[in-house]
Amino acid sequence: MVHVNENFCKLPGSYLFSEIGRRVARFSGEHPEAELIRLGIGDVTRPLVPAVVEAMERAAAEMGTPEGFHGYGPEQGYDFLRQAIARHDYQARGVAVEAGEIFVSDGAKSDCGNMGDIFSLDNVVAVCDPVYPVYVDSNAMAGRAGEYDPASGKWSRLVYLPCVKENGFVPAIPEGRADMVYLCFPNNPTGAMATRAQLKAWVDWANANGSVLLYDSAYEAFISQSELPHSIFEIEGARTCAIEFRSFSKTAGFTGTRCAYTVVPKELVRDGVSLNSLWNRRQTTKFNGVPYVVQRGAQAVYTPAGQEQVRQTIAYYQRNAQVIREGLARVGLEVYGGVNAPYIWVATPQGMGSWDFFDLLLRQAHVVTTPGAGFGPSGEGYIRVTAFGRAEQAAQAVERIQSVLG
Amino acid sequence: MVHVNENFCKLPGSYLFSEIGRRVARFSGEHPEAELIRLGIGDVTRPLVPAVVEAMERAAAEMGTPEGFHGYGPEQGYDFLRQAIARHDYQARGVAVEAGEIFVSDGAKSDCGNMGDIFSLDNVVAVCDPVYPVYVDSNAMAGRAGEYDPASGKWSRLVYLPCVKENGFVPAIPEGRADMVYLCFPNNPTGAMATRAQLKAWVDWANANGSVLLYDSAYEAFISQSELPHSIFEIEGARTCAIEFRSFSKTAGFTGTRCAYTVVPKELVRDGVSLNSLWNRRQTTKFNGVPYVVQRGAQAVYTPAGQEQVRQTIAYYQRNAQVIREGLARVGLEVYGGVNAPYIWVATPQGMGSWDFFDLLLRQAHVVTTPGAGFGPSGEGYIRVTAFGRAEQAAQAVERIQSVLG
Repeated sequence: MVHVNENFCKLPGSYLFSEIGRRVARFSGEHPEAELIRLGIGDVTRPLVPAVVEAMERAAAEMGTPEGFHGYGPEQGYDFLRQAIARHDYQARGVAVEAGEIFVSDGAKSDCGNMGDIFSLDNVVAVCDPVYPVYVDSNAMAGRAGEYDPASGKWSRLVYLPCVKENGFVPAIPEGRADMVYLCFPNNPTGAMATRAQLKAWVDWANANGSVLLYDSAYEAFISQSELPHSIFEIEGARTCAIEFRSFSKTAGFTGTRCAYTVVPKELVRDGVSLNSLWNRRQTTKFNGVPYVVQRGAQAVYTPAGQEQVRQTIAYYQRNAQVIREGLARVGLEVYGGVNAPYIWVATPQGMGSWDFFDLLLRQAHVVTTPGAGFGPSGEGYIRVTAFGRAEQAAQAVERIQSVLG
Repeated sequence: MVHVNENFCKLPGSYLFSEIGRRVARFSGEHPEAELIRLGIGDVTRPLVPAVVEAMERAAAEMGTPEGFHGYGPEQGYDFLRQAIARHDYQARGVAVEAGEIFVSDGAKSDCGNMGDIFSLDNVVAVCDPVYPVYVDSNAMAGRAGEYDPASGKWSRLVYLPCVKENGFVPAIPEGRADMVYLCFPNNPTGAMATRAQLKAWVDWANANGSVLLYDSAYEAFISQSELPHSIFEIEGARTCAIEFRSFSKTAGFTGTRCAYTVVPKELVRDGVSLNSLWNRRQTTKFNGVPYVVQRGAQAVYTPAGQEQVRQTIAYYQRNAQVIREGLARVGLEVYGGVNAPYIWVATPQGMGSWDFFDLLLRQAHVVTTPGAGFGPSGEGYIRVTAFGRAEQAAQAVERIQSVLG
């Protein structure tokens, strides 16, 4: 008799965005006339830029010819893309990352979720609180999280690193053991960004303890303050303790086109084994690479035209973030983030519960946000608003919220 | 101190196709003038058909417009594709599979490799011998395979089901416990196909024992004998004991375009839990769907033009298979498969070792094959030849082998 992975059965209810979807569907069913503005799920709305579209069209046409056809590509990604990434995203910033350390994939979600494969189930995992749910759920599925306690919303074997306004939403280094530490900067959901000094402290601690930092910088394109690091590998010592997740999703609007990459430095060794070679083995065994047409599209992001075009798209979202930040502050809401990130983290008024504030904004302002509690216990008392909508929607959402709360 | 997954360290040497790659590179280095014909790795060579290329070009253009842009799609695949699959691949053959049971993915390799996530690590896994290495390696990584014995080439906790000429390369049902059983028909690497009666015996056994059949039918498009089943779900009782993996890779030349799907019937329940809902949870947590442009390409396979075009491509490969089968038989080699599969399974002459025969064909005929021993102990004494080359190459390879052995 086959048995299922019992860890799956410990997972609480359903995924955050499914619950939001259900509440929105119910409201829309009751009020079909309401025009909703969706600033909830972190999905982009601007079209793919022309450089990317043209590259994909060309690649599709190529695939229809005997000479231009591409079958299985390297599981790690084509060299043309790995080289472009190494050159533009790292070497141009003075960061020593080479093509052989870059693994192209179908998404940072997949990589964050699958990276656990190469680590022992006995490791102690630390996550920020609030946190992107994938880090927690994928470890719970693997059995690293222990038991879930519905009362506290916490897993027994996870170490939670509170990110609260008192620490500027940048977690303190834990006092006890933590072997695998997920860090995300610019942060989802709080929009916070860590300084070089803060990251240096994490790197030094990880090297001293043999821990590994799983550094998610999917939102690095939104960093606007020039002194801030775009990559953990800008921090001295990171090559012996960190893995970095990056994505084209938010940088170039690839949420529906699927391309990302993960950097595993060759100096990163634990138990005498190279993690680069372990991840390579994992990927060559359980993954077959990203579509050729998509890799050509991603490569086009690095052309001069592509760079200029995606910069405009990011600037568009950054203006939205500013409109939302300033507009909500004007009605007296406490707002965080939105400067180096596409997320604005808004404290609920008068200590209202975050699902209650979510419902209020849905029902009265017809604006969909994300309740902070969905990201972990310390997210209670906040909602997340994204800057990924259309400019007129961002402005209109602010107006509606102002008139509901004003 | 973080620890790595020690199971990775138990994996022997490198993946079969890397070793082949190394031997081929060494030979090419020594003999740069040799024109190699590659009938080793199971990769297609014919271009994408026009219906698919046009659909992908249209979809890429659409993604460049505000109205046509698609962000995150459903992790399970767009309904337009799931419906097309259900209708054409199942309902049209009288098989009751519905869209909600179909999970679109980036590849059967990913799905076969990741499916283990939803099962307990205590299950006993059975695999055919010889076997597609991914089933074995992904279970070894998870810790289900026990210890590897280099002398026998076997893992201590796996149940091996010998597929040998005496049983027509269709495995007998095991006498002891086997909870998760990987079956692949049409078979990779032997090219064998199971009859309805043989599959019915497996289904009845699985239902009686609470086992799950992990049925890989990635090569179903190559079935030429009309009485043979294309899907495990054509067998009565399979909906309570089987999961099926399918792919566009070999059906429509998608090895570099990446689209596949897995069917998990809603009646499939173990430990009181629906495996459809477990896989849904796994995919929504650790996967973010297939690129929109690729799903539009896959959908086009089901249009009348697409169907006619891919049928021609398959017929092309089927003719190659016939040329190889008949040509190698003519010099006295024992050949199997190639009738309902793109693989021809060739016994080595005079009991030669399969790597030796591989080397002989590489060095004397300049033809790259795959040594059967790379697929497991019972593959010793065979090589696998694929029909995926160009027609003139298939014919030339046969001539060269004939002149080396004749």
